[in-house]
Amino acid sequence: MLSETLTLPDGGMLTLRRARADDVPAIVALLADDQLGAARDGVDGPDGAGPYLRAFAEIDADPAHALVVVEDAGAVVATLQLSILPGLARRGAKRGQVEAVRVGRTHRGRGLGTAMLRWVIAEAERRGCALLQLTSDKSRTDAHRFYTGLGFAASHDGFKLTL
Amino acid sequence: MLSETLTLPDGGMLTLRRARADDVPAIVALLADDQLGAARDGVDGPDGAGPYLRAFAEIDADPAHALVVVEDAGAVVATLQLSILPGLARRGAKRGQVEAVRVGRTHRGRGLGTAMLRWVIAEAERRGCALLQLTSDKSRTDAHRFYTGLGFAASHDGFKLTL
Repeated sequence: MLSETLTLPDGGMLTLRRARADDVPAIVALLADDQLGAARDGVDGPDGAGPYLRAFAEIDADPAHALVVVEDAGAVVATLQLSILPGLARRGAKRGQVEAVRVGRTHRGRGLGTAMLRWVIAEAERRGCALLQLTSDKSRTDAHRFYTGLGFAASHDGFKLTL
Repeated sequence: MLSETLTLPDGGMLTLRRARADDVPAIVALLADDQLGAARDGVDGPDGAGPYLRAFAEIDADPAHALVVVEDAGAVVATLQLSILPGLARRGAKRGQVEAVRVGRTHRGRGLGTAMLRWVIAEAERRGCALLQLTSDKSRTDAHRFYTGLGFAASHDGFKLTL
């Protein structure tokens, strides 16, 4: 079972671990507590948490995906998902894709995002990826600086089509 | 078995179908015949086609991935890969991710890329995706126009880290 201690620059020690079904409401709250996510996420719709729990079961059943949370004194304070994609390009390289990175308001500015990204970089390497990739909304200018500071190249445009 | 006729604006009729292992050399040639891919791909390395065939087997075994080729008179002239990613964000939406889109030089400017993307949009919808996404190198300015012309929003920056 994946579980690891993240030590922050201020000495704080948090636990990064694989998400469980009972973490889903807290993860959804993190997704919704965001300028862009507020309109898109929340468990107050007519279907409640149902669609989220179905999606969780699918993620959890497939070893290609790792949905993790960070816990502080029993509370979920951050989350991200890593997915491993096989492909032919770059001599058959596996690529890791990071989605849904969120750090709760109470825990920002403490280097937690950096610690999480360092973990996901190491985890993608352990899983044999030659490349790690993610996209970030162009309006998130802080995120841009954050990812390039970690060594990512902002080399691509990310295109999205709502179906 | 996935197989479909693509009709081009000039009346040309090509076959889009699921890739087979014996298509791998032709797909790699398409990946390598490209300003950015030339340094990254080819079967002339010490390992030859081995890494590509291993990656093909992995893609082919997992229904989350569809690697397709377009055939004209028995020759492979284009390729793309669609991967389906589960996630919690956007109310547990599945997202389709398109990678490794290539159209051979002999078949450019005939609307084949548009026909392939229309197919992949429809396929992602059939597979229950709420969102289709891809990234394109910022140096590919024609690709930018191409994807926005198909309705994609260039809303994100795409970050890559070589591991």
